[in-house]
Amino acid sequence: MSILLGKLAETLGAELHGDEDCRIDRVATLQCASPGSVSFLANRRYRTYLPNTRASAVILSSADLSECPVFSLVLDNPYLGYARTAALLSPRSLPSHSIHSSAWVSPKAIVHETAWIGPQAVIEDGVSIGEGVYIGAGCTVDQRVVIGDYSQLTANVTLCRNVVVGKRVLIHPGVVVGSDGFGIANDNGAWVKVPQLGAVRIGDDVEIGANTTVDRGALEDTILENGVKIDNQVQVGHNVFIGAHTAIAGCVAIAGSVRIGKRCVVGGSTAIAGHLEIADGVYLTGASQVTKSISKPGIYSSWISVQESFVWRKNVARLHQLDEIARRIKALEGSSKVQGSC
Amino acid sequence: MSILLGKLAETLGAELHGDEDCRIDRVATLQCASPGSVSFLANRRYRTYLPNTRASAVILSSADLSECPVFSLVLDNPYLGYARTAALLSPRSLPSHSIHSSAWVSPKAIVHETAWIGPQAVIEDGVSIGEGVYIGAGCTVDQRVVIGDYSQLTANVTLCRNVVVGKRVLIHPGVVVGSDGFGIANDNGAWVKVPQLGAVRIGDDVEIGANTTVDRGALEDTILENGVKIDNQVQVGHNVFIGAHTAIAGCVAIAGSVRIGKRCVVGGSTAIAGHLEIADGVYLTGASQVTKSISKPGIYSSWISVQESFVWRKNVARLHQLDEIARRIKALEGSSKVQGSC
Amino acid sequence: MSILLGKLAETLGAELHGDEDCRIDRVATLQCASPGSVSFLANRRYRTYLPNTRASAVILSSADLSECPVFSLVLDNPYLGYARTAALLSPRSLPSHSIHSSAWVSPKAIVHETAWIGPQAVIEDGVSIGEGVYIGAGCTVDQRVVIGDYSQLTANVTLCRNVVVGKRVLIHPGVVVGSDGFGIANDNGAWVKVPQLGAVRIGDDVEIGANTTVDRGALEDTILENGVKIDNQVQVGHNVFIGAHTAIAGCVAIAGSVRIGKRCVVGGSTAIAGHLEIADGVYLTGASQVTKSISKPGIYSSWISVQESFVWRKNVARLHQLDEIARRIKALEGSSKVQGSC
Repeated sequence: MSILLGKLAETLGAELHGDEDCRIDRVATLQCASPGSVSFLANRRYRTYLPNTRASAVILSSADLSECPVFSLVLDNPYLGYARTAALLSPRSLPSHSIHSSAWVSPKAIVHETAWIGPQAVIEDGVSIGEGVYIGAGCTVDQRVVIGDYSQLTANVTLCRNVVVGKRVLIHPGVVVGSDGFGIANDNGAWVKVPQLGAVRIGDDVEIGANTTVDRGALEDTILENGVKIDNQVQVGHNVFIGAHTAIAGCVAIAGSVRIGKRCVVGGSTAIAGHLEIADGVYLTGASQVTKSISKPGIYSSWISVQESFVWRKNVARLHQLDEIARRIKALEGSSKVQGSC
Repeated sequence: MSILLGKLAETLGAELHGDEDCRIDRVATLQCASPGSVSFLANRRYRTYLPNTRASAVILSSADLSECPVFSLVLDNPYLGYARTAALLSPRSLPSHSIHSSAWVSPKAIVHETAWIGPQAVIEDGVSIGEGVYIGAGCTVDQRVVIGDYSQLTANVTLCRNVVVGKRVLIHPGVVVGSDGFGIANDNGAWVKVPQLGAVRIGDDVEIGANTTVDRGALEDTILENGVKIDNQVQVGHNVFIGAHTAIAGCVAIAGSVRIGKRCVVGGSTAIAGHLEIADGVYLTGASQVTKSISKPGIYSSWISVQESFVWRKNVARLHQLDEIARRIKALEGSSKVQGSC
Repeated sequence: MSILLGKLAETLGAELHGDEDCRIDRVATLQCASPGSVSFLANRRYRTYLPNTRASAVILSSADLSECPVFSLVLDNPYLGYARTAALLSPRSLPSHSIHSSAWVSPKAIVHETAWIGPQAVIEDGVSIGEGVYIGAGCTVDQRVVIGDYSQLTANVTLCRNVVVGKRVLIHPGVVVGSDGFGIANDNGAWVKVPQLGAVRIGDDVEIGANTTVDRGALEDTILENGVKIDNQVQVGHNVFIGAHTAIAGCVAIAGSVRIGKRCVVGGSTAIAGHLEIADGVYLTGASQVTKSISKPGIYSSWISVQESFVWRKNVARLHQLDEIARRIKALEGSSKVQGSC
């Protein structure tokens, strides 16, 4: 796949500085690019590589234009331009439609004739699979699951019973959708299981990263709205609701019945306690801990950077005495006033 | 499945306020209930939905009785009552016994005639599978594993060699039990693997959530006692011991050789360092970090809630100077005393 | 498998105190050992078990020699001696070479005649599998993956397209290597996927724990150098570079484009933010949060131990006011000086 620079600029809606007939056939980073490739500058950290890049052209914002030694495509959002260019130059090649001989497909499942079912996959009774769907090797699709058109399960994905997946959804290996939520009731010291009777409903254009788990609802459904993007190893508890176009980075833990608004960004390794509400447009930086609802959009944090251990040990010991320290300050302030009044 | 309200009250040991002949056929949340369903009130957050519920009856504690607009079943522990009602009204339907044609079962395995082996499952040499056991699609059961009566592996579960699973154990998709622990010995800068020779022994009535991992012991076994309940994406290191009826929420990391007592509750995203002992009856709130043994029952915490980032940044910068700050207070107290003595 | 104590001492390069003809056939912990077994003392916590051990011999350092009631093998690094002894006495028994009848192997894959392909495994087009490789039950090896000699995928491992695995690599169940990194570009509130076009390259002698995920690079490759050891449930983002002989404990989250040096040790539950560089020889204790690059070797920390909750709640409330508290101290210091100057 290749494209002329002028055509690429037109497709992206970019301002071209350079030869419109220059042929581009791949994307590359600034530091590894060679002629024939288009690169991009979207993160200031990598600006240092711009003056020496060997790319044929660079997608960048006007602020960096003057430093660019090669052709350039100017866009307000160069990262978006790069994403589109990469998709253009590297179209995903899907296998021609077929059901692999080693897959097991229930005769009581409905599979569109253009769908692809990979080796060792399992499609159970009552499943419905739409047009152009790709079910990779080793996937297990349990009873009555519905998968919308052009969705893809890469490999070894598990969809439990009654899960509903929208259109153009992309689910990576090891993902489990629809496992039981953690519902237990205490009976004199022992635990009694609370049956998990809801399902999971996933909207259109959702992406779910490797080994992420999304629990089914206890009574009502767990819901991921359209355009939600979830990274690897995220845990989504039962009855969680995630609003449209919210992005959640890796290793986030979302406890049961949390409601997250639309267009939020949740940094990696964040933990959100159960039954909380998070407003639309909230940005949580990495390793945040959320123990109360957040009602206003904004940027929130609670990370603690590492220090050299011998320093940190002293500081954290004081943290464990902090209330007492604060009281001592109050006392000092009191005595200071008294003295001042002398 | 349906039941008369009077019969339900009797089964639960609840005090009935209402018509014993009212027919109930499902459970529902207060806000989504419609006639024919029974709801429950167990968490004060949801009290606001009680006055307008359309449920036929509500399971609640006597404190909420006066606010209930419909029939009620009064119990000290309404959540337990709900769990039992849901199980009653939604019995799990298991397939009739059979070994699926696409499964591979070693002729050297012993499988009870009432067990069910799903599509694409693998049962290796020397495995022993008890009465009424359910092995879901894509599960791999390695050599010499023993699975007790009525246990269920939902789908895509991996049990490594020599693992022993008790009765009525429920294991969700993506779980790995018996993988090697992280044993490495340093040899002049390179790592030498320490063979992991122990097994994992799981008691009766244990539940293990999706994508959780339980490592085999290095020499002795990793042990989960009866009634232990573990949520999704929990890591249990080698030689860990978890006492009976302890519940562990999602994304908890338990390092090797930790010993957790009976009837503990471990909040989600907690991390427990290696070789520690935690007494019976310890409650760790979410996102706790445990770096020393805990010898007394009680509630322990170390979470930090998010603040708006521009505020948090200043606070965490001070945290990194906290020991010095504490020293300055001490100095002030000293000078204050001196002044006081003037 | 058994060995005479004299021969074992010679193999380990240990100083023997005892009968060289004593026969040893297994390793055991100090507290569970019985005659015929060799034990070890490498962690001071377990010193208390030494005087009463029933092992035939103990591997220990000279500091503990005087307390040893039985034969002893003295080494500077007893843990390494134990690792080697365990490997010697418990050689891994591999099946004789074969491709299982229920596996699916593409006719366009190259599989060495000594390789072993387990039940329900999938080997796709263009895959290359070296000498003595073990592919366990249920593994999926996607197009053009290369697996070096004597590597082992235990079971249910997913290797995505184009992944390159070195020699003697050991990958545990549920691992996903080569899933898409989390690349999304914002387009007026909705997210556009950034195609992930790089691969993952894994060196020789690497070990990867259960349910760990390693993302493919966005453009260039994600790289794990020789001798890297990774525990369970670790997330390695796209374009991460991990230097030779670095060890990473369980549940660590490494965001995209992080560069970790050689011979680092990363404690469990650590989170490392994107695009950072960590020097060679850095040791991060458990639950560290890294938000800036670390340029010097050393030990770094940011953990916070639990306290009883009623105490912690007060301390963390003060932490949220810490900047204000520090300002009040400064004010006091000012007024104190003024007073002092009176």
